Amino acid sequence: MSFSPLIRQLIDALRILPGVGQKSAQRMALQMLERDRSGGLRLAQALSRAMEGVGYCRQCRTLSEDEICPQCADPRRDDSLLCVVQSPMDVFAVEQTGFRGRYFVLKGHLSPLDGLGPEAIGIPELLERVANATFAEVILATNPTVEGEATAHYIAQMLAPKGLAVSRIAHGVPLGGELDLVDGGTLAHALAGRKPISV
Amino acid sequence: MSFSPLIRQLIDALRILPGVGQKSAQRMALQMLERDRSGGLRLAQALSRAMEGVGYCRQCRTLSEDEICPQCADPRRDDSLLCVVQSPMDVFAVEQTGFRGRYFVLKGHLSPLDGLGPEAIGIPELLERVANATFAEVILATNPTVEGEATAHYIAQMLAPKGLAVSRIAHGVPLGGELDLVDGGTLAHALAGRKPISV
Repeated sequence: MSFSPLIRQLIDALRILPGVGQKSAQRMALQMLERDRSGGLRLAQALSRAMEGVGYCRQCRTLSEDEICPQCADPRRDDSLLCVVQSPMDVFAVEQTGFRGRYFVLKGHLSPLDGLGPEAIGIPELLERVANATFAEVILATNPTVEGEATAHYIAQMLAPKGLAVSRIAHGVPLGGELDLVDGGTLAHALAGRKPISV
Repeated sequence: MSFSPLIRQLIDALRILPGVGQKSAQRMALQMLERDRSGGLRLAQALSRAMEGVGYCRQCRTLSEDEICPQCADPRRDDSLLCVVQSPMDVFAVEQTGFRGRYFVLKGHLSPLDGLGPEAIGIPELLERVANATFAEVILATNPTVEGEATAHYIAQMLAPKGLAVSRIAHGVPLGGELDLVDGGTLAHALAGRKPISV
């Protein structure tokens, strides 16, 4: 069957959303048309406003429509702590933990094979940010992947001469679940990083 | 954390999509902002065009921006067969099978408890459509649920005096999978509806 052109275009356009295939896109399109046209119009408006209006924070480089994002603008946050992450999504994840220091958002991780060197992911800007502020500690919260580890290691080397504490988020077993489901590498890290229990 | 207002509004708006919760909406919003703004703008445009431009086919009542949908307008289709379904999505499903007759789309199924009688779902219009055409057979393809069966049964009664064949899609075991996973009701239907094998 041929959907009529407007519906077909809507289905095609919905497929740019992550995790949305042909079938879900059809369901989304027809459901909105059948049941929630005003919601669909609100979504259209929110999309075009965000796509056109949202840029990057000048200071931490997370997504924001203001020159300085809410986290950077907040005077009550801890100016001695800087948390370095790979993406704006990670800022959100770290915020959920209650962390209230400052952030710096890289553009992904180092990947020499893809031509992504330190400049491409924003390491010079990070060094500049550190030089212009009074952080006591930089926490490297890049992903716990090979590339994320390599990126953290590289940044730690760059920051070493600056005379501030540089730390990496801990590796170990995640909370919940069962020990025999944890992969060997993680468990090895958890053993190596064991801590005395004080009673 | 607070996302900035435009991002927050986009995340809220994305949640009207079926199957999209808070977490997926965040991922969709940030991913579009980071990687595919032109796709996001195209989606905004497709949405507003479809929400404003798509109506219902005057003849079969499926979703269409034209007064007469592509299926009704096509002169090569079989004018002796009418397939009655519950929603525009079902038209698509039946089209996939290679069916090339005409359609009539009800607005859901009869549901007296919710106040949905024959008028609410468009049965008078269906009878009118049948009266004004020369169908030899009406195929009732409402859902294989209690309500869908009741709706099919009601329509069959209404059509009985019109002197045309009225049929219901077959119930039985679906293709693929294993017999012991099929529910009892379906298996009972499959046994009762068994057919001789010609060799």
